[in-house]
Amino acid sequence: MSQDISIALDAMGGDHAPEMVVRGANIARQRFPKVHFLIFGDAAQVEPIVASMPLLAKVSSVHHAGQQVKADDKPSVVLRTGRDTSMRLAIDAVRDGRAAGVVSAGNTGALMAMAKVVLRTLPGIDRPAIASFFPTLRGESVMLDLGANVQCDADNLVQFAVMGNAFARTVLGVMEPSVGILNVGSEDIKGHEYLRDAHAMLRSANLPGRFHGFIEGDDIAKGTVDVIVADGFTGNVALKTLEGTVKLYAEFMKQAFRSSVLSRMAILLARPALKTLRARADPRRYNGAIFLGLNGVAVKSHGGTDSFGFANAIGVAVDMAQHGALDKIKDDVARLTIPEPAGPVAASL
Amino acid sequence: MSQDISIALDAMGGDHAPEMVVRGANIARQRFPKVHFLIFGDAAQVEPIVASMPLLAKVSSVHHAGQQVKADDKPSVVLRTGRDTSMRLAIDAVRDGRAAGVVSAGNTGALMAMAKVVLRTLPGIDRPAIASFFPTLRGESVMLDLGANVQCDADNLVQFAVMGNAFARTVLGVMEPSVGILNVGSEDIKGHEYLRDAHAMLRSANLPGRFHGFIEGDDIAKGTVDVIVADGFTGNVALKTLEGTVKLYAEFMKQAFRSSVLSRMAILLARPALKTLRARADPRRYNGAIFLGLNGVAVKSHGGTDSFGFANAIGVAVDMAQHGALDKIKDDVARLTIPEPAGPVAASL
Repeated sequence: MSQDISIALDAMGGDHAPEMVVRGANIARQRFPKVHFLIFGDAAQVEPIVASMPLLAKVSSVHHAGQQVKADDKPSVVLRTGRDTSMRLAIDAVRDGRAAGVVSAGNTGALMAMAKVVLRTLPGIDRPAIASFFPTLRGESVMLDLGANVQCDADNLVQFAVMGNAFARTVLGVMEPSVGILNVGSEDIKGHEYLRDAHAMLRSANLPGRFHGFIEGDDIAKGTVDVIVADGFTGNVALKTLEGTVKLYAEFMKQAFRSSVLSRMAILLARPALKTLRARADPRRYNGAIFLGLNGVAVKSHGGTDSFGFANAIGVAVDMAQHGALDKIKDDVARLTIPEPAGPVAASL
Repeated sequence: MSQDISIALDAMGGDHAPEMVVRGANIARQRFPKVHFLIFGDAAQVEPIVASMPLLAKVSSVHHAGQQVKADDKPSVVLRTGRDTSMRLAIDAVRDGRAAGVVSAGNTGALMAMAKVVLRTLPGIDRPAIASFFPTLRGESVMLDLGANVQCDADNLVQFAVMGNAFARTVLGVMEPSVGILNVGSEDIKGHEYLRDAHAMLRSANLPGRFHGFIEGDDIAKGTVDVIVADGFTGNVALKTLEGTVKLYAEFMKQAFRSSVLSRMAILLARPALKTLRARADPRRYNGAIFLGLNGVAVKSHGGTDSFGFANAIGVAVDMAQHGALDKIKDDVARLTIPEPAGPVAASL
């Protein structure tokens, strides 16, 4: 499957940039020998770091950017005045076909705004969505939208289903993904009207895989479906609730094990088991919010991640590019037919 | 604080009724010596069980009910035809002042529908809400609404804040509860319009405690606030996501500890620590969805719970009754003033 591709990196985004970004590229290089890196940033800072890693230097080019986006910059301001930022130049490289995807750990709002304007949405997609994947009892699931669109209509949700479906096939490696709509009850009559309309449309749509129907909040971690479709408000609340609960439970466990001499001895014996547990739920393994629906691959790494996490975000971009995620979305949208929706389609909230 | 009160129990609701209910009452009896129980159900089944627990029998009376609500009965049908059900008779006892509260592990929709019709909403409350409390990093928090109202306006949310506040003071024992509105970002400008309107109203309202502002999904488990206010759709998704994630993590941990001989030995040493952990997150400790905003205390136990969990649901009803939760809600609503809201108040979605 693998082919020679280039990935554009915003070297100046993230808490520990640029060193974290370059080190991340060096980890990704070992995993993806056929990938070239276009590294955008302050050349005076970036070049010495790249030069210190000769094997990375061989597959990379450093491109000077006179500006950089700061964490608290307003997206609208960056859009107007940030044409020479490392983030913008990296996105431009995707638009111009010099790179197959862009990865940045910088300002999310600015990245989304610039990626939308520069790359534009795919034909048939009204609004791009933010997607993320995470471990479940059954394997891995992807959820979208996670906050790009606070209010959605049924058409948006159907398009999210198409995009999430293509992502599950390309990055998660699920041949026939199951798709569910996040709701408050699994009966068909529950929830907001636009959810019921999307349900009716997806039930009769010719999407690859299987439409499961409505799911509830506890189905997310269960892994009941491969693709969880939600409006950006609900998806954002659900993902952050899940993340917060994982942290709570890990802290409860830590406190419980510290509670006695015996349990502290148990930690020593259980170290490999605990390591397995930690690795399985390691947020760095699931680093990378994906902007889906654009004419180009754009991945947002967590700002606070380390080079291991950043390498995983690069991995998501590489997977999407090498497995033709965008072509799959384009094809599926183009051939999407929805025979006689059961109910009227709500235009908006 | 404690005083003689009576609690009405629906003996026929729940997977393991009526034995589970009567055993639950027997556990609660030891914890609350001043509580009397009015037990509604099929006398032929219930009386022998009560008779087998002489200390419970001394503080209980059994009241025959010729009907019972089934798990899959439609609320609208139960409302019309279920006047002799154990659930309905238990609610009637609260309306008539013979009991200070009702606890049922039966059909949630039927309980909510009958409690609304029979008990009616408190003055100043437009819609009752479902609330629940759970463990957090800081202690315990209460969240509402959890599904009674899929669509809400700003006034509803303000009333939920009043009700949750009173619950935190009476059942959780928090003197000055902090209140937050669940949203997708903590900046004041984010999210749906009705959330921003409720934010503006609560910022200037004279509620006891402290209005924190907006919170995000990960703040739920963190315990950032004592009272989490949400519309019924968002609250339902968030609570179920949290519950599902706790189960996922517990399962991951179980699998990790089973993975080797060493880790299985570690379990033996860590048994007390793991017991502490399990107890801390034990869903039976947090059993009981509370219907707030009604002219009477009504608590819904999980249908699948055991007698220990049911006793905790009884405990919630007793706490609310003995600490005057409803009077606090009535007082706070009556004296609620909101000087010059900063923005227009959205009427609905």
